[in-house]
Amino acid sequence: MMTFDDLAAIPSLAETLPIADEAARAAALDRQNSLTKPPGSLGRLEDLALFMAGWRATPRPRIGLAQALVFAGNHGICAQGVNPYPQAVTAQMVANFQAGGASINQLCRVNGADLSVVALDLDRPTADFTATAAMTGAETLAAMNRGAAAVDRDADVLILGEMGIGNSTIAAALAAALFGGEVADWVGPGTGSDAEGLRRKISAIERGLARHRGLTPMETLAALGGREQAAICGAVLAARAARIPVILDGFICTAAAAPLHAADPRLLDHCLIGHVSAEPGHRRLLAAMGRTAVLDFDMRLGEGSGAALALGILRAALECHNGMATFGEAGVSEG
Amino acid sequence: MMTFDDLAAIPSLAETLPIADEAARAAALDRQNSLTKPPGSLGRLEDLALFMAGWRATPRPRIGLAQALVFAGNHGICAQGVNPYPQAVTAQMVANFQAGGASINQLCRVNGADLSVVALDLDRPTADFTATAAMTGAETLAAMNRGAAAVDRDADVLILGEMGIGNSTIAAALAAALFGGEVADWVGPGTGSDAEGLRRKISAIERGLARHRGLTPMETLAALGGREQAAICGAVLAARAARIPVILDGFICTAAAAPLHAADPRLLDHCLIGHVSAEPGHRRLLAAMGRTAVLDFDMRLGEGSGAALALGILRAALECHNGMATFGEAGVSEG
Repeated sequence: MMTFDDLAAIPSLAETLPIADEAARAAALDRQNSLTKPPGSLGRLEDLALFMAGWRATPRPRIGLAQALVFAGNHGICAQGVNPYPQAVTAQMVANFQAGGASINQLCRVNGADLSVVALDLDRPTADFTATAAMTGAETLAAMNRGAAAVDRDADVLILGEMGIGNSTIAAALAAALFGGEVADWVGPGTGSDAEGLRRKISAIERGLARHRGLTPMETLAALGGREQAAICGAVLAARAARIPVILDGFICTAAAAPLHAADPRLLDHCLIGHVSAEPGHRRLLAAMGRTAVLDFDMRLGEGSGAALALGILRAALECHNGMATFGEAGVSEG
Repeated sequence: MMTFDDLAAIPSLAETLPIADEAARAAALDRQNSLTKPPGSLGRLEDLALFMAGWRATPRPRIGLAQALVFAGNHGICAQGVNPYPQAVTAQMVANFQAGGASINQLCRVNGADLSVVALDLDRPTADFTATAAMTGAETLAAMNRGAAAVDRDADVLILGEMGIGNSTIAAALAAALFGGEVADWVGPGTGSDAEGLRRKISAIERGLARHRGLTPMETLAALGGREQAAICGAVLAARAARIPVILDGFICTAAAAPLHAADPRLLDHCLIGHVSAEPGHRRLLAAMGRTAVLDFDMRLGEGSGAALALGILRAALECHNGMATFGEAGVSEG
């Protein structure tokens, strides 16, 4: 099992973690070009099949086990009035996940993912980052290790999601700290802030950024992030070690992984972004990270919902890749 | 069973065919707003659930039977050298559909659609529209009736697709005749035309448009269309009569239904567009028809592949709509 004991050592993992298998990818491309369709006509479905081939290191990748992990955490920044929902909703939604009543339950069922929910010390929120670092280095590493330990090494793909009242503020803070720009450009309504709530979010983030300056990306994760963000980073890295491709969800999940991008962009080479969120900071964040998302449905729910929806597209891409006949097999004339 | 015996009577069907049930749609919206998520946060998945509720006339619509129909036809316009593949490929691909080797087979399997392929007189191509009308009125009505007869009235949703060597030329011709503009702006590579092939497509369409002027939309379908285009129109109308929502595929399928839009746009109110094709005319056609597509994956394969992929999204939307807990059921506090 992958464990972390030093935030400063994270960037160098880019030198030692597995990379995509280019021979498997090339063999998958040869197969795509032999299938009964004009070459390239399945568009991004072909790209997804090649992506899977490279990371699973086989020309004919299949999804047996699709694991979905939703990490939940609570945040001291809620003391600044950044969210209209009470913090108790985080635990209530965890119970809803466990009872099968949330969106992510339905999306995992319809697309064949095994869902686990990891509640991270919900009764012990992180510190208010306007006053001090949200987490110590040790707390950050502990949450990363919780995330890494939750990854099933037998999975063929990993869906990541999150739940945490206040964590659209965490996401905007991480994005602003890592990529700069006006705080207001990273902030959106989240679960439903009004104009006054937005002003409180912006003010809290500006005070947090003023307090925590000159940090490395992983120190920024500790200073401004939360446990579910750190757990997502740990899960992303543990998946990479096992050559398991990852589908990140929307704004909050992408921002959670952004410290890894800032540490070394190669650390996210095995990750897809499931969807682009309606939360306005997400499109900006994807541009800053040079990324595009699989889907664009104006969703802004979190929980991994956009990533689980994208799993259905990934499955469809592999069904075509593996199940279609070649021109030779079908006796179809090539142009 | 719906039958057609007069092209001139088609536009007035907009006055008599069923419309969406607004009460069911409103009840579905009430349900969406009671589910354990911020209202609106499932974005376009919520829109899709409401669309289904209206057309199926129930607040909790479900997809039992999803029917997929692929209509295949051959085209006299191929005499003008508009396609690099031999016309025999149409029948070869029909055999491939029947053997389960095509993209549409895989996508129907993974998304739970029952696929039927209807080959329309492949050994008897339509006439070359640069010389005469592609079909007589009687041939057009016969193909429409074949399409209507193929619709299973027990279906909860209908996926439509097509196959026909040369039919991206048919699609561009219909679009240009119905919506105007430069022919070159509607023409793309289709299955793989090179620059010289594109010039032949444009020239053929320009000559066809010059020959067939001042026609009604349904007469335009006869003059420039093909049997699979007419069958798609018949299936769209028969589905409407049974309150079955339709998912149209990409450029060729949308262009096939465009005469109905031009006859009366309400005739397509029960239709979704599954995806926006990489074939450049499709985006222009959607704009002319005031439509957006469910997916955008740079696909350009036809067969109904984009519509079958969108079925997975529709299923996910209904799983959330029907399966999620309400705030009350889950004991989650509202904001």
